[in-house]
Amino acid sequence: MTSSFYAIIPAGGAGTRLWPLSRATRPKFLLDLDGSGRSLLQRTWDRLIEVTDPSRIFVVTGQDHADAVRAQLPELGDDRVLAEPAPRDSMPAIGWAASVIARLDPDAIIGSFAADQIIDDSPAFAEAVRQARIAAEADYVCTIGVSPSGPSTAFGYIESGDNLGLAPAPEARAVVRFAEKPDATTAAAFLATGRHSWNAGMFVSKASVLIGHLRRLHPDLAASLESWADEPERLDATWARLPAIAIDHAIAEPVAAEGGIATVPATFAWNDIGDFGALADLSSGANVESVVLDGSAFISSTTGRPVTVIGLEDAIVVDTGDALLVTTRAHAQRVKQATEAWREKGRADLL
Amino acid sequence: MTSSFYAIIPAGGAGTRLWPLSRATRPKFLLDLDGSGRSLLQRTWDRLIEVTDPSRIFVVTGQDHADAVRAQLPELGDDRVLAEPAPRDSMPAIGWAASVIARLDPDAIIGSFAADQIIDDSPAFAEAVRQARIAAEADYVCTIGVSPSGPSTAFGYIESGDNLGLAPAPEARAVVRFAEKPDATTAAAFLATGRHSWNAGMFVSKASVLIGHLRRLHPDLAASLESWADEPERLDATWARLPAIAIDHAIAEPVAAEGGIATVPATFAWNDIGDFGALADLSSGANVESVVLDGSAFISSTTGRPVTVIGLEDAIVVDTGDALLVTTRAHAQRVKQATEAWREKGRADLL
Repeated sequence: MTSSFYAIIPAGGAGTRLWPLSRATRPKFLLDLDGSGRSLLQRTWDRLIEVTDPSRIFVVTGQDHADAVRAQLPELGDDRVLAEPAPRDSMPAIGWAASVIARLDPDAIIGSFAADQIIDDSPAFAEAVRQARIAAEADYVCTIGVSPSGPSTAFGYIESGDNLGLAPAPEARAVVRFAEKPDATTAAAFLATGRHSWNAGMFVSKASVLIGHLRRLHPDLAASLESWADEPERLDATWARLPAIAIDHAIAEPVAAEGGIATVPATFAWNDIGDFGALADLSSGANVESVVLDGSAFISSTTGRPVTVIGLEDAIVVDTGDALLVTTRAHAQRVKQATEAWREKGRADLL
Repeated sequence: MTSSFYAIIPAGGAGTRLWPLSRATRPKFLLDLDGSGRSLLQRTWDRLIEVTDPSRIFVVTGQDHADAVRAQLPELGDDRVLAEPAPRDSMPAIGWAASVIARLDPDAIIGSFAADQIIDDSPAFAEAVRQARIAAEADYVCTIGVSPSGPSTAFGYIESGDNLGLAPAPEARAVVRFAEKPDATTAAAFLATGRHSWNAGMFVSKASVLIGHLRRLHPDLAASLESWADEPERLDATWARLPAIAIDHAIAEPVAAEGGIATVPATFAWNDIGDFGALADLSSGANVESVVLDGSAFISSTTGRPVTVIGLEDAIVVDTGDALLVTTRAHAQRVKQATEAWREKGRADLL
């Protein structure tokens, strides 16, 4: 591989379904959710320095979190923290970083990897990135698709087609289409085809190819992003006018229809910790002393207080200094609605 | 009525089923459980000063709680706090107070009223006490029986017989027998008779009559109790040898068989707050800000932290500074087992 590889870490999103562990001021990616001793952002960093030089890693995050990102990643130079004035979803974030990187290295291959996912097998991750880089050298935008562990309705899906016949990337296939989060029936049908994988938002491409798609499909956005590389002082004034759009809609879906998207399979265990059920899957039962009678519970505490649970199955108890949450695994996705209820009560300070 | 009426408040029992609200150092009777602004002990006092002079109220409590009792009841003179060196159930407590009162007033009529019950209708309580005093004047030991609101298995029962024909106490009846906490079938059968009431441990009698029964049925105990009235300094040395025995077994059951027990009906609402289900019946849903989605919850907090509950029916959440309990109404009686589990884990400090 002749081109250098640059990693972009979009570090955004509050992780509302993990409230009250995650807060607006301490979003999910800054948290050590599984007791590993490293935050999700730090674990993402640890994974990426296995596949590229630390000097080629960029983080795009909100201005409010830039200092925390720098504090957690002391090896990350200040000039590689791109601080967004306001969230605009993934396309402006990744496109901005791509533009900055393209100025530094016009031949760069870039990969985007969310800051809030857990991947436990680094060699398998490195192999997926290696094959994705091969596809990127052939001018594809290549996604890494996660093998479904079940008919989840919580993820978008990638439908793969023909093998691309790229000798050093024997598993790279064309992407036929992307599908939004499906209903349960559709999810089961997807699983049955064997051709569908979960869209984990991991994209690898030449920076120039990504920018080319942007110029063609979203010329105004591309112009804004590229102008900042020359005149960074204009960013604050123009950022607010950017559309909020995900890379999936902005590029992945239309380019897939043109045959320009590839996919390689992830053979590693992957967890986006989308709710407390997913967190419970990763963790032992309780991180504090507990008594659980007549049932089962996942207990996550930041206070250290002992917890007693009696007579509940699959209970989830989240104990923090200023808010307490009790629910069950079956209702874990409803935590987001609870945060909305607190906002309506005028208690946005809790969020 | 010619004889003066003295009230005895046995203030003992930890209220283990209300842990972690109740603790060894802050037992149930010292707590304001229903947010009334007064503890159960204070409410008992408030009720009793409607039926007798404050100078005729005595509290029997553990030595560890005597200071707290005095602090909560500033009108209670020091000489009317009888501090037990160790718990010995209700007969030694009530018998000791009866002996002390009999020395002050040989004609005294005494009534014993537990410190940890809630009664909301003071006039109805006063009327029950009035009729019980009539029966006591006729040398009965008279209990006040609570009308069952359902076939509870949590209480002992009183089976009444013939009306005693005491003109000023038209509802006073003989007690045929006392029954221990029944199983569900027996409880339903009791309810069907219309002759069974709950034994709330309220007994009214002449002090001399109670002491007479004690001398006859438990002469050693009677001798110890009476000796202290003369030589209070001997109490510490001899208390440890007392049997732990409830007044129900020591006097009520055998004397009922002899025809010496009467009962008058309580027409007031009564709640002994035996577990968090009973407490939930008394209280509004939460004493802190809360969001409850897809279910229902009773939330009792001493920390003031906002609580979120999702997807549970009849949940019970008890939030204190050093311990958190989550259960459901159906499992409320199991709280006692949970405290035992903490003791086995070496965390008696939590109890």
